[in-house]
Amino acid sequence: MPHNRTLSRPVILGIVGDSASGKTTLASGIATILGTDRVTVLCTDDYHSLNRTERFKTGVTPLDPTYNFIDILEQHLRLLRDGLPILKPVYEHRHGTLTRPVYVPPTEYIIVEGLLAYHTRALRDCFDVKIFLEPGDSLRCSWKIRRDCAERGYTQEQVETELQRRQHDAGLYIHPQRTFADIVIRFFNPDPEKEVDAAHLSVRHTLRPTLPHPDMTPILDVGGRAGYRLQLARDVDGKPVDILDIMGDIDDRRARTVEDLFWSLIPEAHHMRDHAQLGRVIDERNQAIISHPLALSQLLVTYHLVKAALGHTVV
Amino acid sequence: MPHNRTLSRPVILGIVGDSASGKTTLASGIATILGTDRVTVLCTDDYHSLNRTERFKTGVTPLDPTYNFIDILEQHLRLLRDGLPILKPVYEHRHGTLTRPVYVPPTEYIIVEGLLAYHTRALRDCFDVKIFLEPGDSLRCSWKIRRDCAERGYTQEQVETELQRRQHDAGLYIHPQRTFADIVIRFFNPDPEKEVDAAHLSVRHTLRPTLPHPDMTPILDVGGRAGYRLQLARDVDGKPVDILDIMGDIDDRRARTVEDLFWSLIPEAHHMRDHAQLGRVIDERNQAIISHPLALSQLLVTYHLVKAALGHTVV
Repeated sequence: MPHNRTLSRPVILGIVGDSASGKTTLASGIATILGTDRVTVLCTDDYHSLNRTERFKTGVTPLDPTYNFIDILEQHLRLLRDGLPILKPVYEHRHGTLTRPVYVPPTEYIIVEGLLAYHTRALRDCFDVKIFLEPGDSLRCSWKIRRDCAERGYTQEQVETELQRRQHDAGLYIHPQRTFADIVIRFFNPDPEKEVDAAHLSVRHTLRPTLPHPDMTPILDVGGRAGYRLQLARDVDGKPVDILDIMGDIDDRRARTVEDLFWSLIPEAHHMRDHAQLGRVIDERNQAIISHPLALSQLLVTYHLVKAALGHTVV
Repeated sequence: MPHNRTLSRPVILGIVGDSASGKTTLASGIATILGTDRVTVLCTDDYHSLNRTERFKTGVTPLDPTYNFIDILEQHLRLLRDGLPILKPVYEHRHGTLTRPVYVPPTEYIIVEGLLAYHTRALRDCFDVKIFLEPGDSLRCSWKIRRDCAERGYTQEQVETELQRRQHDAGLYIHPQRTFADIVIRFFNPDPEKEVDAAHLSVRHTLRPTLPHPDMTPILDVGGRAGYRLQLARDVDGKPVDILDIMGDIDDRRARTVEDLFWSLIPEAHHMRDHAQLGRVIDERNQAIISHPLALSQLLVTYHLVKAALGHTVV
């Protein structure tokens, strides 16, 4: 008897958000859950058409689509989606230079993170799951200062000037992409009066009905201070959405209950649980700590990716 | 009454041959005839996967397909053929480095010159016209020494070592591609006893019946020492071919007769004659001189490109 042939095309996740909104952290966390050898993480910054020096000379920001090879990004996503390799350009953040491209073979999962990945219809059509990150403003600023000073050779003053300089283009090009996301994820400090460590930020998920979200009724019937909440609401644009909040102070036991629910909904992915390292984040003191809200965000996205992979598999 | 819409896809010319066989000279001459703004010249050396240092470290030559992104070259030629832009890698010969890629929009004509452009069936299928260059061996060596010392920072001794080192791979990967060419072009010194300048080299065209070559009977009925000759012959592989020789000492009047014949066969291209700069070549003393044999080779290839363009135009 002949074997049934299994064909599949990659599952493509998009993570869009302004500079320093946590795209890379979310992408690498999800890649770890799925298994890094099955995932390609592609950053759209590689498609900048100008290097840092040229941008400063012409007074433009990397947020402006005109100075990004959007048509080539579309082409490369289409090729990867069709299971073909690409020769990907490389933008080196450390020095702000465009360098030697790299060969990227197709993998089972592809995570595309960047500023402009939902800018055109052709881009949006490539994604199975679309995330938009919008952390609270002061949180994002502190993340940007910390990262750009540590990893990209900027001073704090330079980062603050740059944040100012980018505001106009962010409003014009980045924020309008929010409307195309299936899930908007917002990390925030639950008590702006107090400083809080990375493990205790809360998160709000705005779940649009553009994806079949998991049934969360089993965890709905809980007391008031359970550490999470699911509410029917209107989004900022007036459209009906579900809002799933996970509080920064959720206790381990309750977090575990929600985790167990999500894992039980994707039995196909049980083997991932061992190496998942859910919610792992590096804090201000360079220590690895666990954030329950991040863990549950990662799991929710993983749920959708695993379901999308099943949809792509033709037996 | 509605206008007829004119659609066309680019015409793609291939020029393959060993290192320093005259590919770039032929390509740029033909680009000048067609009009440089309508032509993209693409060199397959840009698809090397290793830079010069890495090649020396691993002891491989750039002639080995394993160390070239052949699948990406196939992809890029398919994209250009379909009228789409590419982000082309760049190999800098001066320093032997792989650098920032460049955006290449599609143009009416594309000339692909390089070592391995006929290596796979998928590559060969992209071309409208396929040329293979095989100048006499001693001629090619002197061309290579002159160029690599002047433009690529090698010493004469280094070039001679490199020629030796490449011989094995040239036999394995370059020469076998000859069989796929529509026209084999061989420049040679008509009298090996004497040095001859670039303007007075002779050229032999081996014309395979894989393309409908122009009718040259009008110039056949000439005396023995006319400066050119058309003969029926067997190729080195035993297959029937036409051999068109143009002698280095052909006089201006006779060269003009053949030129007029070629131009008369492509009335669509009469506007090109003004800027054609036929046969222009830079000699050993850096002077621009005219080679009638080169001029007629360029015209023969142009004839085929113009005819191919007509074939692509749908009115």
